[in-house]
Amino acid sequence: MDRLELHPDRALPAEPGVRAIARRLYRRTADLPLVCMHGHVDAAVLAADAPFGDPAQLLVVPDHYVTRMLMSQGIPAARIGIPSADPDAPVETDPRAIWRLFCENWHLYRGTPSRYWLEHELVEVFGVDEKPAATSADRLYDRIATALAQREYRPLALLDRFGIELLATTDPATSDLAAHEKLAAAGYRGRIIPTFRPDAVVRPDRPGWRADVELLGRLADVDTSGYVGYLEALRRRRRAFVDAGALATDHGHDTADTQPLSDDEAESIYRAGRDGRATPAQGRAFAAHLLFESARMSCADGLVMQLHPGVLRDHSDAIAAAHGPDRGFDIPVAAEFTRALRPLLQAFGHDPGLRLILFTVDETVYSRELAPLAGAYPSVRLGAPWWFLDSPDGMRRFRDAATETAGFANTSGFVDDTRAFASIPARHDLARRIDAGYLARVVAEHRLDEEEAAETAVDLAYHLPRTAYRRR
Amino acid sequence: MDRLELHPDRALPAEPGVRAIARRLYRRTADLPLVCMHGHVDAAVLAADAPFGDPAQLLVVPDHYVTRMLMSQGIPAARIGIPSADPDAPVETDPRAIWRLFCENWHLYRGTPSRYWLEHELVEVFGVDEKPAATSADRLYDRIATALAQREYRPLALLDRFGIELLATTDPATSDLAAHEKLAAAGYRGRIIPTFRPDAVVRPDRPGWRADVELLGRLADVDTSGYVGYLEALRRRRRAFVDAGALATDHGHDTADTQPLSDDEAESIYRAGRDGRATPAQGRAFAAHLLFESARMSCADGLVMQLHPGVLRDHSDAIAAAHGPDRGFDIPVAAEFTRALRPLLQAFGHDPGLRLILFTVDETVYSRELAPLAGAYPSVRLGAPWWFLDSPDGMRRFRDAATETAGFANTSGFVDDTRAFASIPARHDLARRIDAGYLARVVAEHRLDEEEAAETAVDLAYHLPRTAYRRR
Amino acid sequence: MDRLELHPDRALPAEPGVRAIARRLYRRTADLPLVCMHGHVDAAVLAADAPFGDPAQLLVVPDHYVTRMLMSQGIPAARIGIPSADPDAPVETDPRAIWRLFCENWHLYRGTPSRYWLEHELVEVFGVDEKPAATSADRLYDRIATALAQREYRPLALLDRFGIELLATTDPATSDLAAHEKLAAAGYRGRIIPTFRPDAVVRPDRPGWRADVELLGRLADVDTSGYVGYLEALRRRRRAFVDAGALATDHGHDTADTQPLSDDEAESIYRAGRDGRATPAQGRAFAAHLLFESARMSCADGLVMQLHPGVLRDHSDAIAAAHGPDRGFDIPVAAEFTRALRPLLQAFGHDPGLRLILFTVDETVYSRELAPLAGAYPSVRLGAPWWFLDSPDGMRRFRDAATETAGFANTSGFVDDTRAFASIPARHDLARRIDAGYLARVVAEHRLDEEEAAETAVDLAYHLPRTAYRRR
Repeated sequence: MDRLELHPDRALPAEPGVRAIARRLYRRTADLPLVCMHGHVDAAVLAADAPFGDPAQLLVVPDHYVTRMLMSQGIPAARIGIPSADPDAPVETDPRAIWRLFCENWHLYRGTPSRYWLEHELVEVFGVDEKPAATSADRLYDRIATALAQREYRPLALLDRFGIELLATTDPATSDLAAHEKLAAAGYRGRIIPTFRPDAVVRPDRPGWRADVELLGRLADVDTSGYVGYLEALRRRRRAFVDAGALATDHGHDTADTQPLSDDEAESIYRAGRDGRATPAQGRAFAAHLLFESARMSCADGLVMQLHPGVLRDHSDAIAAAHGPDRGFDIPVAAEFTRALRPLLQAFGHDPGLRLILFTVDETVYSRELAPLAGAYPSVRLGAPWWFLDSPDGMRRFRDAATETAGFANTSGFVDDTRAFASIPARHDLARRIDAGYLARVVAEHRLDEEEAAETAVDLAYHLPRTAYRRR
Repeated sequence: MDRLELHPDRALPAEPGVRAIARRLYRRTADLPLVCMHGHVDAAVLAADAPFGDPAQLLVVPDHYVTRMLMSQGIPAARIGIPSADPDAPVETDPRAIWRLFCENWHLYRGTPSRYWLEHELVEVFGVDEKPAATSADRLYDRIATALAQREYRPLALLDRFGIELLATTDPATSDLAAHEKLAAAGYRGRIIPTFRPDAVVRPDRPGWRADVELLGRLADVDTSGYVGYLEALRRRRRAFVDAGALATDHGHDTADTQPLSDDEAESIYRAGRDGRATPAQGRAFAAHLLFESARMSCADGLVMQLHPGVLRDHSDAIAAAHGPDRGFDIPVAAEFTRALRPLLQAFGHDPGLRLILFTVDETVYSRELAPLAGAYPSVRLGAPWWFLDSPDGMRRFRDAATETAGFANTSGFVDDTRAFASIPARHDLARRIDAGYLARVVAEHRLDEEEAAETAVDLAYHLPRTAYRRR
Repeated sequence: MDRLELHPDRALPAEPGVRAIARRLYRRTADLPLVCMHGHVDAAVLAADAPFGDPAQLLVVPDHYVTRMLMSQGIPAARIGIPSADPDAPVETDPRAIWRLFCENWHLYRGTPSRYWLEHELVEVFGVDEKPAATSADRLYDRIATALAQREYRPLALLDRFGIELLATTDPATSDLAAHEKLAAAGYRGRIIPTFRPDAVVRPDRPGWRADVELLGRLADVDTSGYVGYLEALRRRRRAFVDAGALATDHGHDTADTQPLSDDEAESIYRAGRDGRATPAQGRAFAAHLLFESARMSCADGLVMQLHPGVLRDHSDAIAAAHGPDRGFDIPVAAEFTRALRPLLQAFGHDPGLRLILFTVDETVYSRELAPLAGAYPSVRLGAPWWFLDSPDGMRRFRDAATETAGFANTSGFVDDTRAFASIPARHDLARRIDAGYLARVVAEHRLDEEEAAETAVDLAYHLPRTAYRRR
C-alpha cells in the first residue's frame, strides 16, 4: 500500500529556521474557527442537508479545477461524467468508473493546489490513508462512500465539524432566499448567510436579462418595466438579503469599469434591453453604471461590495454549448483598476458607508494598483488571492507583492471562494500555512517580532475577514 | 519598556549560509558614503539650516507613506495634522497629539518599508531605544524633540553625519536656484546640487502653465510668448542649472511617450496654451514632444535625463482639493516603454551625449522592457526601484527580474528619491542589505565569486550612481 | 592563474536541505540525452560539417546576448567585429582582438545567463581552466582555437558528444531543405529535422514578400499569383518538410492575433501585396488570418504549431541598417493571448490533430493567460521560458507562476531555442538544475514525494519535449 499521510509541516517554508517560526505561528491559527465570507456552496444543498452523493459527484464531476486538468490532457468530458446538452451524447454515469479515471490520473495534479486540497480532504475528512491510484481507486471509493452515508457527513454536520463560524453563499439577485429561510428556521440565521449578486440583471444585452428583471420585479413587488423601478427592485431585494443576514454583494464583471451614465442614458439602455435590442457596448456601459449605483446603494444599506473582474467566461463556445458554464474554460485577461474605479472612488471612496473589496486573477495589479488603492482609500480592502492565484505560491506572491504597500490591515483576510464544501478546511488551512510562512520569513529577517507576527497571523485568519466584511 | 533595537542582520536573507555571505558583502558597503543622485529634499530647508520642527512635522505630517496608512484605516486627515484648504476646517495642531496618534497606530506599519526606515531613524539618528506605542509616545516625543533642538541635528550637520557625499535636490525649471546659490556660497557647491524638472512647463493644458512659462522667460531673460523662445528659455535655464552643479533633469510624465511633433504642430499647441485653450490631448502630445526635445538638449549640454512615468496623480479630487498634492493618493497605472521611447531612442539612443535613466512603478516592465532596453542602448540605464517598489521585497524582485537581462552595469545604483531627509541613511542602508542578499544568493548558487559580488555590491552602492549620473 | 571551475552544485538552491534533494533529482536527469525540439542552429553548418571558425566567430560575434552587453556599455559594434552594411566602415577583423575585448569585459556578464552558459562551454566543451580576463585572453584563444581544429570539434562530432538525440532547426518556408537532404543522406534523417517557419510569406506589406511568395511557388510547383495557389503552396511545402522529418512549424508574429478573414478579404489583401500596395494594417490582418489557417493545416498534416509573439524587432533602425537583424535590439512588448487566440481555439482547440505550443517574453501572461489556456485546452501546451526569460531566475519564476495552474504535463519541457550550437549542453543542463531546484522545494515543502519529483524531472527534461512535439 502506498501510504497517504499529511506531513505536519506541509506548505511551510523549507529553511529550518524559518520553518520553526512558521510552525509556531501556524499553531496560533490552526485551530481557529473558519470564517467563510465569500464562497459558492449551494445554499439549497445545506438546506436540504441530504447526504452528499457518491465520491465522483462530490469530488470530481462538479470541480472544474479537477475536470479541467483531465480535459486538458485529452480525456473527453463524457468519460469524466460531465453531462452534455445533447441528450443522445453518451456520458459516463458509473461513479466508480469516473472515480477510477480520476485516480488513474492522480499524477497530473502534481504541483497543483487541487492535489494539496484533495490530499487534505481525503485524510482529514474521509480518513483515507492510501494514495489515489488505479490499484487503490476502489478501496478509496468504498471508504468515502461509506463515510458519506453516515449522519456525521451530512452538510450541516460537517459545517460544525469543520469549525465554520460563518459561511456566506453567493446568490443571484433573483434568488427567493427560500433555502436561507429554511436554514434560519433551523437555527442557522446569521451563520449561513446569502450574498447579493446582481450579475444576471446588469447586462441588458444578455439573452435572459429581460426575464430575470421581470422575476426581480416580482420578488421585489415592483414594476421593473422601467429603469427607476428596476433600481427600486434592486434596493428592495438588497434589503431582503440584509434581513436574511447578508453582509455583502458580489460583482463579477468583465472589467472594473465604474463610469456612471446620466439617468437619461441609463433609461435609454434599459429600454433597449427590454426591447431586446441592447448592444454589447450598451450592456457594458450599463454594467459599469450599475457598479457605480451599487456603491451608492452600499453607502445606504451598508452591504460590503466585492468586485471580481477580469475573466473571459466560456472561452470555448463548444464547451459551453455542450456542458454549460464553469467547466474550466474561463480564462483571465489583463485587468485595469486605477482608472476604472476612479469614478466610483471619487464619488464614494471616502463615504464611511462604503466598503469595497477588490479581487483579481491578474497578479500584476497587486503592487501596481490594488495595494496602492487599498493603502489609500479608507473604503478599499485588498481581497485574498482569487481562483488561479489561490495556491501555495500564488498566495505567497500575493503577500510578497502587496504587503509592503498596503500593509496587512488593508487586506481582507482569507476567503475560500469555493463551491466544493468538503474542501473548505483544506483551503483555509493552506492559507494559514502560507501566511505563517510569509510572516516567519519577515520575522527571520528581523523586520517583525514573532509576537507581532502571531497577532497578524490571527488577524489574517480570523479577525480581518470579520472586520473587512463588517461582521458585527 | 518594550525595547527597540536594530538587529545587525535585519533585511538579510534568513538562510544561514546565504546570510553569512550577505553579512560579509554588506560590510563592504555599510560604511561607504551616500551618493544621493535623485531625491526631493527641499533645498531651501538645507539653505536655511534651521532646526527641524517637532517630531510630528519631521516624521509624520509631510510623509505621505505614513499619513496614507492612517487615512486608509479611516483616520481623518485633520487628526493627522494635514492642513486643509478650508480655513474653517478644524485641524490638529498639537504635535504631541499627532505624534501620539501615530504611535498608537504603529502596528499598522507592520510589513511596510515605512516601519523599517522609521525604526532605523529612531534608533540610529535619534537614539530612541523604545518601541513606538501609546505608552511610549511622550517619551519618544521628548527624546526626539530634545535632539532636534541641538546644533548637531541641523540639516547641514546631519548631511555630514549621514556621510552624504552628494545630494541632488529636484527643482522646477522655474526655480531661481537662490537656495543653491546660498549653499554654494557656504561651501556646498557640487555637494548639494539641483536637478532640472520642467514638468510644470510642458503641459500647455495645465491651468498654471502660462504663468509658469512667463516666469521661465523672465528667469532666462528670453521672450517666451512663442515656442522658439520657450525652447531657448529651457536651454538657458538648463545651463544655469549646470552652472549651479546640476547633473540631471527629471521628467514625471503620465506616460513615457516621446513622439515628436513638427515645429508647426508644436508652435500651434504652444499658441493654444498661451491662449488658454489647449486640450488635454494637445497637452499630452506637447509633453511627449518635449521629452524628445529634452533628449536633444541633453545630447548638447550633457544633463542626464531621468524619466519617472506612469502615476495617475491626485486620484481623489476631494483629497487634492482639501489637502493638495502628495497626500498618498497618487496611484500607478500600467506602463509602456518599448514603443513609447522608440522615437527618442531612434534619434538619440546612440548619441554619446545622452544618458537616459528609466524608472517605473509598474514592475512588470523590468524584465519585459526596461532591462532589454538598458541591456542594448548605450545611453540607457535602468533606475532603482521607485516609490511603491522601494521596499525590501520590491528591491529584491527588481534584481531578480532585471539582472539576468541587463546585468549590473546597466543599472543606476541606488537612489533614495525621498523628501524625508532624516530617512536617507535608512533607505541607503536597506538597499545595501537587499543587494548584499541578492548577491549572496547568486554566490551561494555558485554563479558568482564572492569577491566579484563584493566588487559589485560596492558598484551598486557607490560607483554606479556616480557613473550613471556622470559625476566627474 | 585565476582558476575557472564549475561547481557541481551550481544553480541549485542554496538551502542545504533543498539542495540535497535537488542534487538527487538533478542526478536523475543530468545524463539524459538532449532533445532539442526548437532552435536556430544553421542546418547548412551541420551539413557542411566544417570546423567552426575561430573563438571570436564561434562565441562572440554571432551571439547577440554577448555583443548586446558590450554595445550597451558603449563599445562600438565595429570593435566587436560586427559587420557593417557600409563597405567603407572599418570593422575589427582580427579574431584575437575581438576575443581579447570580450575577455577584458568578462565582468559585465556577472549575473547573466551568458556568463553561466559560457563558463559551462569553456570548461566542459573546450577544457578551459582559467577565467577569461585581459591576462588570460590569449591563452584561452589558443586553447579554444586548437580544439576547434580537431576532428572531434566538428559540428556532427559535437552532436554526438553532446548527447543530442534530436535537433530541430528553424527554416523558412522557402528553404529548399538541401542541407537537410544532405544530412539525411549522411544518416541523420529523423535526427536533424527542419521546422517550417512561414514568417517571411505572411506579411504582404513586407518589402521582400512578393519575391518570397514567388520562390515559394517555384519550390512547391504551384502558381502563387493568387491566394488559393499560395495556400496550396504552403500545404505542399509543409508536406515536403514533413517528408524531411519536420515535426513542427514556428510563427514569430508581432501579436498572437488569430482573427480569420473571409476568403474575399484574404484574396483582396493578397492581391494588394502582389501589387506592392498592402498596408501594415492589412499585413497584420493577413498574418493573423494565416495563423488561423496554419492551425487548420496542422489539424490536417499534424505539424505541431509553435507561437513566439510579442517582440518588436529592430527597435533601432540605425543598428538594423548598419548591421542587420538579430543584433540585440529586439525589445519585447506587452503580450495578449486570451482574446487573440480565441478564434483559433474556438475553431481548432479541441481538434485532436492540433498541438499548439505557446511562448512568451512577457512573463505576466504565465499565470494569467498561458497556464489557464494550457490547463484547459487539450491542444495547448505552455512552452519553455523564451529568450530573456531563459535564465536561472527567469526559469524559476516560470515554474513558480505556471505550475499551480497548468501542472507539469501541460508544459512543453525544455527547448534551448539557440543558434549557438556549442552552448546547447549548457542550456539544457541549466534547465535541469533549475527544474531540480523547483521540484526540490516542492518536495521539501511536503507537497510532492521525492520519487514523484524525480519522475517529473525526467519528464521535463526528456519525455515532455518528445510528447509535446509528437516525436513518435
